[in-house]
Amino acid sequence: MAKQSLETIRVFALGGLGELGKNMYVVETEEEILIIDAGWMFPEDDMLGVDVVIPDISYLVQNKEKVRGIIVTHGHEDHIGALAYILRKIQAPVYGTKLTIGLVEDHLKEKGLRKKADLRQIHGESRITVGQFPIHFFRVTHSIPDSVGISIETPQGLIVHTGDFKFDQNPVDGLYTDIDKLTRIGKRGVLCLLSDSTNAEIPGTSPSETSTGSGIAEVFQEAEGRIMVTTFASNVHRIQQVINAAQSEQRKIAVVGHSMSKVIEISRKLGYLHCPDDIFVDPSEVENMDPKRTAVLCTGSQGEPMSALTQMAKGSHHELAVEKGDTVVIAANPKAGNEKSVSRLIDFLYQLGAEVIYGRDNVHASGHGFQEELMLMLNLLRPSYFIPVHGEFRMQQAHGELAEAAGVSPDNTFLLDKGEVVEFTNKKAKRSGKVPSGNVLIDGLGVGDVGNIVLRDRRLLSEDGILVVVVTLNKKSTGIVSGPDIISRGFVYVRESEELMEEANTKVKTTLEKALSENVKEWSTLKSNVRDVLSRFLYEKTKRRPMILPIIMEV
Amino acid sequence: MAKQSLETIRVFALGGLGELGKNMYVVETEEEILIIDAGWMFPEDDMLGVDVVIPDISYLVQNKEKVRGIIVTHGHEDHIGALAYILRKIQAPVYGTKLTIGLVEDHLKEKGLRKKADLRQIHGESRITVGQFPIHFFRVTHSIPDSVGISIETPQGLIVHTGDFKFDQNPVDGLYTDIDKLTRIGKRGVLCLLSDSTNAEIPGTSPSETSTGSGIAEVFQEAEGRIMVTTFASNVHRIQQVINAAQSEQRKIAVVGHSMSKVIEISRKLGYLHCPDDIFVDPSEVENMDPKRTAVLCTGSQGEPMSALTQMAKGSHHELAVEKGDTVVIAANPKAGNEKSVSRLIDFLYQLGAEVIYGRDNVHASGHGFQEELMLMLNLLRPSYFIPVHGEFRMQQAHGELAEAAGVSPDNTFLLDKGEVVEFTNKKAKRSGKVPSGNVLIDGLGVGDVGNIVLRDRRLLSEDGILVVVVTLNKKSTGIVSGPDIISRGFVYVRESEELMEEANTKVKTTLEKALSENVKEWSTLKSNVRDVLSRFLYEKTKRRPMILPIIMEV
Repeated sequence: MAKQSLETIRVFALGGLGELGKNMYVVETEEEILIIDAGWMFPEDDMLGVDVVIPDISYLVQNKEKVRGIIVTHGHEDHIGALAYILRKIQAPVYGTKLTIGLVEDHLKEKGLRKKADLRQIHGESRITVGQFPIHFFRVTHSIPDSVGISIETPQGLIVHTGDFKFDQNPVDGLYTDIDKLTRIGKRGVLCLLSDSTNAEIPGTSPSETSTGSGIAEVFQEAEGRIMVTTFASNVHRIQQVINAAQSEQRKIAVVGHSMSKVIEISRKLGYLHCPDDIFVDPSEVENMDPKRTAVLCTGSQGEPMSALTQMAKGSHHELAVEKGDTVVIAANPKAGNEKSVSRLIDFLYQLGAEVIYGRDNVHASGHGFQEELMLMLNLLRPSYFIPVHGEFRMQQAHGELAEAAGVSPDNTFLLDKGEVVEFTNKKAKRSGKVPSGNVLIDGLGVGDVGNIVLRDRRLLSEDGILVVVVTLNKKSTGIVSGPDIISRGFVYVRESEELMEEANTKVKTTLEKALSENVKEWSTLKSNVRDVLSRFLYEKTKRRPMILPIIMEV
Repeated sequence: MAKQSLETIRVFALGGLGELGKNMYVVETEEEILIIDAGWMFPEDDMLGVDVVIPDISYLVQNKEKVRGIIVTHGHEDHIGALAYILRKIQAPVYGTKLTIGLVEDHLKEKGLRKKADLRQIHGESRITVGQFPIHFFRVTHSIPDSVGISIETPQGLIVHTGDFKFDQNPVDGLYTDIDKLTRIGKRGVLCLLSDSTNAEIPGTSPSETSTGSGIAEVFQEAEGRIMVTTFASNVHRIQQVINAAQSEQRKIAVVGHSMSKVIEISRKLGYLHCPDDIFVDPSEVENMDPKRTAVLCTGSQGEPMSALTQMAKGSHHELAVEKGDTVVIAANPKAGNEKSVSRLIDFLYQLGAEVIYGRDNVHASGHGFQEELMLMLNLLRPSYFIPVHGEFRMQQAHGELAEAAGVSPDNTFLLDKGEVVEFTNKKAKRSGKVPSGNVLIDGLGVGDVGNIVLRDRRLLSEDGILVVVVTLNKKSTGIVSGPDIISRGFVYVRESEELMEEANTKVKTTLEKALSENVKEWSTLKSNVRDVLSRFLYEKTKRRPMILPIIMEV
């Protein structure tokens, strides 16, 4: 890389562009690196067996002595989930608001990293300096309390990152997106804005979180039996509104699901959730309570198979089961890819005789602003340059069009992919190459040991299973001592396919004997002969292509 | 089963209830069976490697001498796709309209069954008798031409099945849902109505298919470059409107994708699609043509990885590639479960610099009526009994509520699951047990040889892969002659895990030697020892649970 002038600023993302998830943005000078957010994301359908995906941080690890700090804008996992993995490789203080740090602490504790981390609490009015960067924050409304945006003073000018935001005009906690401060930042002049693109395709203004409270309250007023409510565990305002509704209707609440219990505990302890202790009951008590005095708050709004709600629906939960007469409120929309599992869960609940209230019934509101709100942000800040972030490419593009309508020249809007760098020199921006970026797959304790070959094998195995062919040859590889034995898994019901497997066995035996009689001795050739013959035979008979694993032993 | 009076009629579904797909309904007397539709459906996410799913027809096979005919209401695959499998086991004539039979013929030809099948063409005004049943048809509008509903005279009264329908007030071919005939059927008195529930949750009236034509024409008028349009291959009216738009704007059309070419060929031959020969060009010519004179009609509206549009987007199609300046029209909505792959395709197209026009932009209309249309059907036919069909359970339930509003007593509405029988005796209906029903999975040439165990193995394999442990013992099982060798697939990158695998090998060896020295001789015990030790070791080290397959050889 060419030597840069001290004044030059580089901005790029290691995650969060072209995708919804694993947000990670970087502001870099020659001497210093500042990281904004460190999220994970759930694996795509083709990442079989993978637990979560984090950004490729090899660029940061290479330059780890430059990293001055990590600022997290709020406590959602797509903004904090990768911290544990990053802090194992990079030493840097982590800055966040009280609730955010509370959730980060818990996250790190689960990974055994709590004591090592240097966590620093800030609030909406904090002014801090990280490395050479003076930094201000501004409060924003989002689907988790205590969310902030960031304003960074760089040698080239102000760089503003909104975090995830909406302009909720009736926030549950009375804390509005700080328009006053945004106006002042805008007046100082913003060099570059990075803004949340999630809902850039949706016209109008997002409904207030408070509106979902009315929807939920109505359900509580009308339900004759028990009520089960599921929502994102981190949506503390939604949970507050469920608690309020339960209080009004003299219902007790049982909390079911690990992440829900944890968030409620943390947010109560830190003062973000307000309720008397005695509103909660143990889930085991519910079955013996008056249904009209009972509510359950549980995980499972995405139809996850192992979640509390799915287990309660399938009868596999150890304490509770959904029954005829229950009202189930799904106070969330399915995220992309979860539509079908949510739809199946809803259908299943209906079949049990439950009443199901879901997304369209005014019990969910997005935490991300719609077009009018994104325009408002652009109009308040009037940036010289604009980088739409936090979205799939078409959302970034739609956001770019909004920026144009707000007066940002299309030449000054950068639709970036992960790793693509925008460089600011003399207050002018240009594209400037790419740093390494991509997906790192986490499977169990392994970080990065699952890649394309392993995934390809898992895909093959998942489609048609595997046949293992074992044969023992004598020392000189002139004859078969034992076998061939063929064992299959995930291919066919063995009982119904005895004939097929016997034929396959004969094919393999004949092939091997012929090769050995022709003096073929290389095991690799023998194996590939077996693979070819068996593969062709099975495809012809079944039109399937199982993985074939020949194993030769020698005695 | 108790002996039934001759007059008794039994109605049930083998598919299409509690699901969207594999429609199959049965009307049965003691002597005769009439089948309505024989569809397949695409596998659920957890049916790994399965190609399609058909209904369990064991009840029909048991009673095959009673089957008098199969009536197919229209040519969609969820209504005709299982015919080939059924006709292999059951001899019966298949009745359908001209286009439907044309598509059935093609479907059977691909399975090598065309010559054996007894296909009989009917039309909207036909009156036929199948077994003892006099049958009338009535024309309905749907997203494929030549769709009909069925009115069956039974000893108990009229049973009406709507097929898939909407009341399109401006159909592309000018052929309306036959309200006149429905009125007359209603006046005769309908014992039981089976009606399409797909959109029973959606208020209002569905937009006319013709409205999508205006949306498409607008795109053709405005696009400056090439246009690619994808839709469901069977949506002949949509295809007609694309052809009309191309003609108006002097664009030639290249058809890409097997099923699209096939449907265009069949529907032109049978007179359902009208266009001059010279509007079509070979896909290989497109690259050399004026972009403003070119349009491509292709498969891939569901983001299927192997479809024409996805391949054209990924650059893996042998003739065409999507480029900057192209306009891509996705004239279809994603079906449940395909939302994410469609969304990824759209995002990918945007990144290529293409303009993408999709669902919400007035280029798609559902083929299934909304609530007002379902009410109209109920009001025209005024059935004594009602069975909402063709839908997930909550759609059936919503349809039941509409029927109540239309005057059908809730006691007379049956929300059935697959296999559940409604019996009509003395013009009264009651539930009457269940016949066997369920999913039969088709994988390659295999029908029903993939079941729970195979799927469980595929799921295990897909999550953490497999380890094969091979060891050769001497004849007396007192010592190891060769091995243990451990081979893994889909577990970890072997190169990065040599140490782990060596440790695993030592564990297995120690375990075996210990067991052998303690005189353990049963292979099943040895194997389960190996499995337990290795499984525990690997879980501790990696938090993964690969399948472990111990193989013992003896020489």
